[in-house]
Amino acid sequence: MTETADPLVLFMPSGKRGHFPVGTSVLEAARTLGVYVESVCGGRATCGRCQIEVQEGQFAKHGITSSNDHISPIGPKEERYDRVRGLPEGRRLSCSATIQGDLVVDVPQDTVVNAQVVRKAASDRVIERNPAVHLCYVEVDEPDMHKPLGDLDRMKVMLEKDWGYTDLQIEPYLLAQAQKILRKENFTVTAAIHRDSPTSRPTVIALWPGLHNEAYGIACDIGSTTIAMHLVSLLSGRIVASSGASNPQIRFGEDLMSRVSYVMMNPDGREAMTKAVRQAVSDLVDQVCASGGVARTDILDAVFVANPIMHHLFLGIDPTELGQAPFALAVSGAVSCKASDIELSLNPGARTYLLPCIAGHVGADAAGATLSEGPHRQDKMMLMVDVGTNAEIVLGNRERTVAASSPTGPAFEGAEISCGQRAAPGAIERVRIDAQTLEPRFKVIGVEQWSDEEGFAEAAEKTGITGICGSAIIEVVAEMYLSGVISADGVVDGAMAAKSPRILENGRTFSYLLHDGAQKITVTQNDVRAIQLAKAALYAGIKLLMEKLEVETVDTIRFAGAFGSFIDPKYAMVLGLIPDCELSDVKAVGNAAGTGALMALLNRDHRREIEDTVTRIEKIETALEPHFQQLFIDAMALPNKVDPFPKLACVVTLPERKVLAEGDGEGVGRRRRRSRE
Amino acid sequence: MTETADPLVLFMPSGKRGHFPVGTSVLEAARTLGVYVESVCGGRATCGRCQIEVQEGQFAKHGITSSNDHISPIGPKEERYDRVRGLPEGRRLSCSATIQGDLVVDVPQDTVVNAQVVRKAASDRVIERNPAVHLCYVEVDEPDMHKPLGDLDRMKVMLEKDWGYTDLQIEPYLLAQAQKILRKENFTVTAAIHRDSPTSRPTVIALWPGLHNEAYGIACDIGSTTIAMHLVSLLSGRIVASSGASNPQIRFGEDLMSRVSYVMMNPDGREAMTKAVRQAVSDLVDQVCASGGVARTDILDAVFVANPIMHHLFLGIDPTELGQAPFALAVSGAVSCKASDIELSLNPGARTYLLPCIAGHVGADAAGATLSEGPHRQDKMMLMVDVGTNAEIVLGNRERTVAASSPTGPAFEGAEISCGQRAAPGAIERVRIDAQTLEPRFKVIGVEQWSDEEGFAEAAEKTGITGICGSAIIEVVAEMYLSGVISADGVVDGAMAAKSPRILENGRTFSYLLHDGAQKITVTQNDVRAIQLAKAALYAGIKLLMEKLEVETVDTIRFAGAFGSFIDPKYAMVLGLIPDCELSDVKAVGNAAGTGALMALLNRDHRREIEDTVTRIEKIETALEPHFQQLFIDAMALPNKVDPFPKLACVVTLPERKVLAEGDGEGVGRRRRRSRE
Repeated sequence: MTETADPLVLFMPSGKRGHFPVGTSVLEAARTLGVYVESVCGGRATCGRCQIEVQEGQFAKHGITSSNDHISPIGPKEERYDRVRGLPEGRRLSCSATIQGDLVVDVPQDTVVNAQVVRKAASDRVIERNPAVHLCYVEVDEPDMHKPLGDLDRMKVMLEKDWGYTDLQIEPYLLAQAQKILRKENFTVTAAIHRDSPTSRPTVIALWPGLHNEAYGIACDIGSTTIAMHLVSLLSGRIVASSGASNPQIRFGEDLMSRVSYVMMNPDGREAMTKAVRQAVSDLVDQVCASGGVARTDILDAVFVANPIMHHLFLGIDPTELGQAPFALAVSGAVSCKASDIELSLNPGARTYLLPCIAGHVGADAAGATLSEGPHRQDKMMLMVDVGTNAEIVLGNRERTVAASSPTGPAFEGAEISCGQRAAPGAIERVRIDAQTLEPRFKVIGVEQWSDEEGFAEAAEKTGITGICGSAIIEVVAEMYLSGVISADGVVDGAMAAKSPRILENGRTFSYLLHDGAQKITVTQNDVRAIQLAKAALYAGIKLLMEKLEVETVDTIRFAGAFGSFIDPKYAMVLGLIPDCELSDVKAVGNAAGTGALMALLNRDHRREIEDTVTRIEKIETALEPHFQQLFIDAMALPNKVDPFPKLACVVTLPERKVLAEGDGEGVGRRRRRSRE
Repeated sequence: MTETADPLVLFMPSGKRGHFPVGTSVLEAARTLGVYVESVCGGRATCGRCQIEVQEGQFAKHGITSSNDHISPIGPKEERYDRVRGLPEGRRLSCSATIQGDLVVDVPQDTVVNAQVVRKAASDRVIERNPAVHLCYVEVDEPDMHKPLGDLDRMKVMLEKDWGYTDLQIEPYLLAQAQKILRKENFTVTAAIHRDSPTSRPTVIALWPGLHNEAYGIACDIGSTTIAMHLVSLLSGRIVASSGASNPQIRFGEDLMSRVSYVMMNPDGREAMTKAVRQAVSDLVDQVCASGGVARTDILDAVFVANPIMHHLFLGIDPTELGQAPFALAVSGAVSCKASDIELSLNPGARTYLLPCIAGHVGADAAGATLSEGPHRQDKMMLMVDVGTNAEIVLGNRERTVAASSPTGPAFEGAEISCGQRAAPGAIERVRIDAQTLEPRFKVIGVEQWSDEEGFAEAAEKTGITGICGSAIIEVVAEMYLSGVISADGVVDGAMAAKSPRILENGRTFSYLLHDGAQKITVTQNDVRAIQLAKAALYAGIKLLMEKLEVETVDTIRFAGAFGSFIDPKYAMVLGLIPDCELSDVKAVGNAAGTGALMALLNRDHRREIEDTVTRIEKIETALEPHFQQLFIDAMALPNKVDPFPKLACVVTLPERKVLAEGDGEGVGRRRRRSRE
């Protein structure tokens, strides 16, 4: 710093910097630079939301020597706040602290002002905040007969003067309450202002007497099977509570199409299902509120993602059109409305936002996952897969993004598998098969040891060994292939029966005995076929998108959803669910759709981002692509009849192709091609 | 028209003109010039709303020779319309007729397309139309799997393409209905789009299959005593039905302050009164719908005016604050909300608009009257008075406008008058007193003859002669003054008892016997005092505003409200209710507040006009003006102790001032001054 220049202030972690005259408040400097620092009280040092920390030391890279001597000493306002509410060591209120010299200022992401119950975040991602709802404290002039503006009109004057909001609307329900609220704390009031898009008018949606220092939102993923919800502080960005529940619509049908059928067959079906899902969401709100110690009336915003059918049922729209070509959505764009419009009881003025749907089979959940993983934000070619009854597939990069859904059916979820079951104690979740002996070892949910380890038998007595869950289905079929139990065409090799008693004959086909106990757990030829059909549908969909983008490989793969969290990418690739890729570039990202909802809740810019992205995503209807059938047939083979997996081959020794069925010329050709590689 | 120039087209009555290439449709030319020609079907020649008429002849002033030869001949589309719906002689559809040469085109204000029941307009004023709700017919693309936009999203595409609406919102209740509506008439649909202010997002508030060619609005004045409503076609501007009803809140208190007291005394008082007024409005909607043959669901917009207390009760706001200083309104600005927000059942997407209030005692009704009469639109100094229990007074011109209310009390309405009664058969409504004999003659409601005419006695037997209504109170007191029965100070001259048996002694004061029949109808000293107090309050309020604007005279006076319609301006001026003015410049304008509501309903620009005007009106609180007391005392005299009435004196011989009470120095001074004039 030279004698003549204004002090230089650098904000972390954003890295934004600028020169400001001595005496400028740190909050004002942050705002000037566009650094988001929360403030409800508008610089009165009462809300405590604008905390910052000075980093001491020499920052040679930035040419700054930062010190607590370069910020004004704690004044009476901060002292009062510290006395009343407590200011953590090292923290300052940026509205009161002024710049006295060069500073490196840290804007903490964890400012906790009230006694929130803080859970481990479901996502560790730090989302830059710019929520659609903003709390603004104002001191309103008292009524004056000489200037007979109404109470709310005088409040609007102050909201414009102190906070810059012009052309404010007032939620009608507040008209009847405003006078009492304003008079309760001597004409001081906190207004919650909702402004989503730049073209929507800012609206006062809630009012509290005096300083109100709490505002929450919910982010919710309504899946066919599970509904997951986060309760988040809009003021700090923290996840205060998370919860999940089964979708009660399961009683109307396990999968989506059976629910559409239910609507078509029952006159009150749509209404019953809408009521069920809304009630489930409401119950979850109760849970997260109880768990986070938050009042429902402090929830001001709610963001939802869902697959198209859940999206429609939640909005009260009959999903019948989605059950038949051309799979017309009633509405595909983002939906904004009041929470009360969808009978969701939060704060009476609370708003909701539903992310856009990409297509009739690629819903707002896929849009949420896209927002979360961001293929459109990077140069790499990213494949994103969300496996459920329908797999939703998004492929692309900054240049171009395509999406499709593929009818994988429920095999990956353990349905249609003879010994399949849900992931619960007793279910086999991991499988290895010795290629020499064909003896398996496995892990069971609820038991710490592998089946060949000491103590397994005792532990497994408690849980039983009851079936195979979705992730283990993938592993066992892959291991059967790697150990030669099944051929590349998925045929269980009867000749192996001579080698191992685990190969059982069932009439014309054979099966593999995974466990012989109270219950016999086998993998049948039909089970293998079911997995082949499912994975072929998924892979053919992916391949179609790759062909659209004219790429032969993908750079990175994201597995979204619960299924992705439990399967081993290696086995998924051995089976040929997904194309060849460095295994380290295949990541399970959990409930990416829910993370996308969270992003849209905490930052309205993300709403614009996904709305814009969705309009640019090209939708491929797999059923209409003439090439799909051939891709599907090729994908029936393990890992694939025509596509090489060179990167996988570096880590896993793939068996030589053997032909077990009738003469298979292509199989031979394929062997020839692979031998050239 | 020269050989080279494009034809010149002049639109009447707007006078807008421009040159257009041969072949341009007349509708397009109108739109280019900003001439409002309705069109629902968007130029498909099916709605018939865009009718125009060619005026034949030479229009030398404009340099145009207009002829039906200068417009394209009737083509197949118009022929089809004429066959199906019928096109009146001389009328053309401007969407189909093209410009072939110079034209003078008349845009008729009475285009009736459907069989509306048309009543005589309550106001003959032609209001230029630019309503907040617009019907737009579109042909939507069928769903396409390759471009999986939702049904509503494809509709929005066409509303942008055909009608220029961008960034459209959809009313949430339509989400569930849209697919059925779109499929009913093969993806053709009529959307009602609401856009009030330029900063509000346009919103689709209603949808119908195919072409929907009807849209109505209501304009309603909620008075303390009476509620008046018009049902208006938003497509033609015609008043289709009008109706009125008593305000059922009367059972909670005759005047406004007693209703505020009711709220303060009864826990459910506010709710009961809100319910009562909303029910009354709803009943009136039933009446006008039945009378006009219109379905409630075709009502899409509703505009209300009301005094501040009715305004608050109608919105569900507790009016207690309005009952005590500083008379704080909860909201003074215009209120926009859904009709359903105030429990008004019209079309589910219908909107409402309440005009702004000017001050705690000068309501949206005064704003409506201001909009109607437009002091702010002219150079002349206009005084507008709406007399009720409170008189609302607006004074001003283009430069500056001031407003006040004055507590006249109920005397002008016949209350507090010994023989006062409501205007009903049997009530005396006109009075003349012979200055020589002091004999009266009068007219009775329900009887054609004056009391001194042949046949009166027989006719009056049917009605009886039961009392004096509000307008006659003014006349009888004025006539008593002109005939010398009372002095300028309002004292009934006991000396006159010698001259006429009509002067009766009542202890220390005297009264005038107006009619001696089954009922004795007299005007007592107390009655005169009550009128004096009321008119003094009004006049002092007016005078205060004149002093604020530093004017000594007003150019024109508008009497709004029922009272104004019945009183004779001459007598009002003789009594000194209103300042001196040319009698021809004093006009009764009926329910000007209701007319203002009508204007705001038919043209949203008028909403902006009154919102802007109200912010610029300076409000004077009479109670806070130290000078008010003196002005009030001066105004107790007839017509006034200090103010001259030179224009009135040209038409009426005002009596010399006589002093009847104890020594009155000022009275003497006044006489001296007047003799100098």
